[in-house]
Formats: sequence, structure tokens, C-alpha cells
Amino acid sequence: MPTPITDPRDPRVADFHDLHAGDRRPGTERGTGPVVVEGVTAVERLLTTGLRIRAVYGVAGRLAALDLPAGVPAYEADKWVVSETIGFRLTRGVLASAERPEAPALDDVLAQSRRIAVLEGLNDHENVGSIGRSAVALGIDALLLDPTCADPYYRRSVRVSMGHLLTLPVRVLTDWPGDLERVRAAGFTTVALTPGAEVDLRSLDPVEHPRTALLLGAEGPGLSAAAMAAVDVRARIPMRSGVDSLGVAAAAAVAFAHLR
Amino acid sequence: MPTPITDPRDPRVADFHDLHAGDRRPGTERGTGPVVVEGVTAVERLLTTGLRIRAVYGVAGRLAALDLPAGVPAYEADKWVVSETIGFRLTRGVLASAERPEAPALDDVLAQSRRIAVLEGLNDHENVGSIGRSAVALGIDALLLDPTCADPYYRRSVRVSMGHLLTLPVRVLTDWPGDLERVRAAGFTTVALTPGAEVDLRSLDPVEHPRTALLLGAEGPGLSAAAMAAVDVRARIPMRSGVDSLGVAAAAAVAFAHLR
Repeated sequence: MPTPITDPRDPRVADFHDLHAGDRRPGTERGTGPVVVEGVTAVERLLTTGLRIRAVYGVAGRLAALDLPAGVPAYEADKWVVSETIGFRLTRGVLASAERPEAPALDDVLAQSRRIAVLEGLNDHENVGSIGRSAVALGIDALLLDPTCADPYYRRSVRVSMGHLLTLPVRVLTDWPGDLERVRAAGFTTVALTPGAEVDLRSLDPVEHPRTALLLGAEGPGLSAAAMAAVDVRARIPMRSGVDSLGVAAAAAVAFAHLR
Repeated sequence: MPTPITDPRDPRVADFHDLHAGDRRPGTERGTGPVVVEGVTAVERLLTTGLRIRAVYGVAGRLAALDLPAGVPAYEADKWVVSETIGFRLTRGVLASAERPEAPALDDVLAQSRRIAVLEGLNDHENVGSIGRSAVALGIDALLLDPTCADPYYRRSVRVSMGHLLTLPVRVLTDWPGDLERVRAAGFTTVALTPGAEVDLRSLDPVEHPRTALLLGAEGPGLSAAAMAAVDVRARIPMRSGVDSLGVAAAAAVAFAHLR
């Protein structure tokens, strides 16, 4: 049975305090807080990942809809108490927090993957989440992030990915773009997606390039000159002339589908 | 020279009052308010569309960055006054309002297009905006919306599309799904995108189907049975087994790129 919570500041639901402030809470270094997911579907997906659940917190009806394993701390409150805890009006009825996935070693990621997406400078949580969701659906085996990308385990990233990001190996690279050499040394063709390239992405035959790492940069600035210089191929998605680039999440989906 | 505004409730900037409330303002029927865009880039794109500009309103620096045609009413205030007018903190410095684009006649849309996207039940402004942006970039000539879709000219739709939606012919269908017969009669192959279909979208040769109308439904419910029954082909984007559908905006981008 869930433990009732009446004080929004109860320390047992501290993982959910002031969620808008996110990783900027004093004492929590960016990228180190617990993973927080919202809604029955995302909590159910979280339960399949094997991540250690720290707490589940929500209204009675939504908690009852979950098949929580024994030993998971569950806390129940009315929606106004939960809203007061999280700092905004609760709309999805239930939240859960979990330990972050352990980052796999880069060598392991490279040994176990055929298609990888590498993100540089993607500082928008929703784009990272959307790309993670498309990656899982379209057969990308892992994400590598440069050190300046948005936190993939921040609440908004996970929400936009519908929780799918939690099932994908993700590693933040520490030597950028130096680590791209390790990706190439592992047998990957490195492909930078960039609107100005001469090569049409569709001319890259996935069969001829069984291991591919696709680089995507932020909207606006795009990939850095250093990253562009470090790849094997620069390729574009053909677009209507005179029109700006696609959104990066849409471009990623188009490219992932092509590599499949 | 812009006219100075000191009262946030000045009727000359009434188009920008309480933007969060959007189309739900008393007296404004849903889907009838002016188009409101935010930020220098989107205002510049708006100026290229030929839509009649009702007002431009922002801080001095951003107004000065715009090359406004003669006769466009421009209003200037400090950022706190503008924020008070719009009901949230101004982040992009300038806004503009314009008359809505006139909806083209369905027969004209059909006569002048080769690739059309048809949206059913897409009640999320951001998905409509994202699909509009990808449509423009990837060569879709027009959007048709069933009567329950989100307003494509609502502020959030236009913002997510980076203003590109304003350059695309858009028509809301009044007879749904009956109007699909008119689309077919005009020589379009109608294709429903649905995860459960047996046909792989990639097996549809764009050259054999020079005129194609692609139907997309909302995430979750998908296309209605009536819409599915009214099309020529039901097709899917191949996905990793066991994984839910892609997000609809990502699926749209993948499908648009294939049809190209």
C-alpha cells in the first residue's frame, strides 16, 4: 500500500521538489539528479528498464493502475499536494524517480552497435528526446553526445521521448571531437549531416556501410568546423530550394530511416 | 518611426493581449483571430508572404532590425510593458500580427499540387507546426486538415513551423472523410500512414504515383476507421519490432522524404 503524504515538502518525495528548477537545484550538479518520468505509460516503461526505482508518487487512481514490484517506495497524495511538491499543476497523475542509467563504456558501445547517432551542441531537451524516440523506433543502436548537449535524462528529454530514451545506450563523450577517431577506428563510416553538403544522403548505400555513425548539429549553428573536418562523409537531405534546413529532429528521423 | 506604447492595455496593441489565452478570448471564435508571430526571423518571413500586417510590437532594438514597409503600424515599448500586454515574459523582443491567409478552394489546391499531406485529428499545435515546416522543406505542396485538427495559424503552430506554415496552402475540409473522394477524383493516390499496414511505404514508387495524398492521424488513436476505409493504400514505415510508433511529426518527415 502506498504511504500517504500530506506535507508537500516531505523529504520522502524530495526527488519531486520544484521540478521546473530541474538540475539547477543547489547541491545537484548538472546531469547528476535522478531520472524523473511522468504519467502511467512512461512509468510502466521505466519499470521495464531495470533501473533502480527511488520513488513513485501520485494520486491514488494512477498508482492503482501500476503493477509496482515489491520494495518500490510508493507515495500517495491528492493532486493539490502533489502539484505543490512539483511546483506546477499535476496533469499526468503520477511520477517516478529512478537512478540514472550507468553510461556504457565507449568501446562497448562501439563493439555492440551498427548504427549510431552522434549529437553535437544539441542544447534543447525536446530535440534530444525526440531524436531518442526516433532512434529507438528506427533502429539506431546508441547515442553519443558531445559534452555540450542537453542532459538526455532530464525530465523534459525523457518525456518527449515517451520514455524510450531510457532503453537506449547513451554515452557523453569527454574528448570532442577527438573521440570520433575511436569511432572510425572501430570500423564506422562517420557521416556529418549538413544542408550545404554535395553528397545526397540517399546515395550512401547502407549495405556498403554496415556500420555508420551519423553526426547531427544544433539548429542554426549546425556542426562545428572541427567536427565536419573529422568525418569521412558530409551529406545532405535534399530540400526544396531556398528553404531553410528541416528541424533537427525531423532531419534525424529522415536520416535514420534512410540508414535502416 | 514606431509609436510609443506606455499602457499595456492600449487598444492599438489589442492583437497581442493575453496571448496564452489565445483563441479562447471571448468574442473571438476559434480559428478566426489574427496570425501572431514572434521573433525577428519569423516576422521577416511573415513580411514575405504578402499577408496584410495589422501591427508590429516590440522593443526598440528589435524593431530597428526589421525593414518594415511603409504603412505598417509599428508600436514600441520596453520589454516589461510588452510582457504585461502579452501575459508572459517577452523573450523574442518583437511580435507581429497579420490577417489570416485566405483558404484556397479545394479544387485549386488539387489542381496545383502533386504531393499533399492530409491530417486527421491532429489536435496538437506543435505537431501541426512541425509537420508544416517539414512539408515546406521536403516538397509537399499543400496541407488539408480534417475539421478537428488544431488551428494551423495559432501562435504555437506558426512558431514551431518557424513561420514556414504561412507560405503553404492550407485548407480545412468540411466534409470528412467525404472530401477524400474529391482528392481521389483529381487523380491522387491516397495513402494512409499506419503502423499496422502490410505495405512498406518504401515499396510505393513516387514515379509511378506522381500525385499522392498522404494521410496522417494523431498519436495514439491514429487514423479513424472511416478514413482508413476511404484510401487506396495503407502503408507503414518499417520500425524496430516491439517499439511503438514514431512520433507523428517524425513519421511525417520520413514519409515526405520518401515521396520526394
